[in-house]
Amino acid sequence: MTRRTVDVPALVASARAGSPRAVARLISLVEDGHPALREVMAALAPHTGTAWVIGITGSPGVGKSTSTTALVGAFRERGLRVGVLAVDPSSPFSGGALLGDRIRMQDHALDPEVYIRSMASRGHLGGLSWTTPQAIRVLDAAGCDVVLVETVGVGQSEVEIASLADTCIVLLAPGMGDGIQAAKAGILEIGDVFVVNKADRDGADATVRDLRHMISLGDRTEPGLWRPPVLKTVADRGIGIDEVMAALDKHRAFIGDNGELRRRRERRAADEIEQIALGVLRRRLGNLDGRAGVGALAARVVDGTLDPYAAADALVERLDR
Amino acid sequence: MTRRTVDVPALVASARAGSPRAVARLISLVEDGHPALREVMAALAPHTGTAWVIGITGSPGVGKSTSTTALVGAFRERGLRVGVLAVDPSSPFSGGALLGDRIRMQDHALDPEVYIRSMASRGHLGGLSWTTPQAIRVLDAAGCDVVLVETVGVGQSEVEIASLADTCIVLLAPGMGDGIQAAKAGILEIGDVFVVNKADRDGADATVRDLRHMISLGDRTEPGLWRPPVLKTVADRGIGIDEVMAALDKHRAFIGDNGELRRRRERRAADEIEQIALGVLRRRLGNLDGRAGVGALAARVVDGTLDPYAAADALVERLDR
Repeated sequence: MTRRTVDVPALVASARAGSPRAVARLISLVEDGHPALREVMAALAPHTGTAWVIGITGSPGVGKSTSTTALVGAFRERGLRVGVLAVDPSSPFSGGALLGDRIRMQDHALDPEVYIRSMASRGHLGGLSWTTPQAIRVLDAAGCDVVLVETVGVGQSEVEIASLADTCIVLLAPGMGDGIQAAKAGILEIGDVFVVNKADRDGADATVRDLRHMISLGDRTEPGLWRPPVLKTVADRGIGIDEVMAALDKHRAFIGDNGELRRRRERRAADEIEQIALGVLRRRLGNLDGRAGVGALAARVVDGTLDPYAAADALVERLDR
Repeated sequence: MTRRTVDVPALVASARAGSPRAVARLISLVEDGHPALREVMAALAPHTGTAWVIGITGSPGVGKSTSTTALVGAFRERGLRVGVLAVDPSSPFSGGALLGDRIRMQDHALDPEVYIRSMASRGHLGGLSWTTPQAIRVLDAAGCDVVLVETVGVGQSEVEIASLADTCIVLLAPGMGDGIQAAKAGILEIGDVFVVNKADRDGADATVRDLRHMISLGDRTEPGLWRPPVLKTVADRGIGIDEVMAALDKHRAFIGDNGELRRRRERRAADEIEQIALGVLRRRLGNLDGRAGVGALAARVVDGTLDPYAAADALVERLDR
């Protein structure tokens, strides 16, 4: 792939001035891991830190796309600029993925104050860790007041999204055994606001009850901790969205007051720094050659004359010299 | 968690002598990331390199568990010792996960020449990368002639399994739009043997035809390359399993002859070494403190006075000193 030279100052200025094309181009640079990213991130840094990052996750079929669309509408009614990142962890391939049901979000496609971007997550370091925080940073610097990050809850993506977000919404639907099973497995710990969507279907109240019960069994009921509400919506008819918005506001105020917002953001930045640093170190490891290069060490591991830990030690030691 | 001291030489000797308990204990050490692993891997190294690692992946519902069971039976008929690792990438939580449909595999549960283990994949470095290769190593050293690694094809797991395996089976079922879509997205590149299971259902021939057509469009038809066959099975009735076994044998002979087997194993070992080395480096980065420690750098990134790349540079530079 040949890489065009990027006029970073001009691009950043355009993005800051509200050009959707410039924002899209910057996110493409993130997806491509473009060499200009360093310069981009340096230029964006002073303008970041204002966006409220809201994660939305849930199993396939719970209505994530519809719910996101409804929330975008509600934030737009407040006059806020909104960014949407729809991250597809099921595809390790290709950037700029456009998911089928993303089409529904086109309600907002012509609104210049809404940026919508689908991203395939990828990279050997896995999942959302590499590209998503940087794409959030772009939207933040471009003046988005809110960034909604939507991802399907499979693999580690739901845990990762929780670590990326200031506030994390976990969506469920009635009667999905899956949903509750997933809940048992760990979403209880990551949701700040639980929403049972499609609440006009049978079993919605039972799902709400089950969830509340499970939450009450956890350690999230201790005094001073945020106690996640369980709400009902019918997102495609706009029912219950006001209550979700109120719960989001309440959570935002709560974590702002008790310092958790700052802690989450520092943790997020620390992860991001570490990922970038590990990328640098990985490249260095890969560049080592000769008898203590990874290729030669791998051959000895395959032969059974060296174990992988000893090989890793040899590699790191080589790096130290 | 308190950690018991492990008598590694005794444990390895028991595992080599065929004790399922010892094998299970070693795999638990892998899952726990136990400090004794270094010693374990050093003791196992001379006894590894003989197992044929076969990956089996496909969307939920295609019959992975049934197919794995049928293949275990076929390898047992040859008198071979078989290890099965069922990796669940959908759960980042808990080790030793026991999946519901794993029960069916209990056909073989009383056979002392078959080791069956369910593993939850996890770890911040993601997916199968950390624990699975080491669990394979345990089964290999314990005398398994074949190790079947089964994982549901979501996220990056299917790509990861292909990089772990000597031979990779991609399972599909008729009439699953999903299957074909996934195929388009990338499984075409990872399958060495494609199997359309549940071939007694409507649409099996169409699925086979579609797959063959898609394969013919790729670059895998060039002379000298393995041309992946597309087979039909009804795994729960044992139909078509002989043909799958024949295709597996053919692939194994093919990659043995042309050097690809060795190349795959070296690549696998290189990945494993790199993962371990990066784990060491990650711990070192995390241990740095003071103004150039990751915590202090993260605070500056949140403040917008430093960008994450510059922060990562500062961190790596600190490591170098």
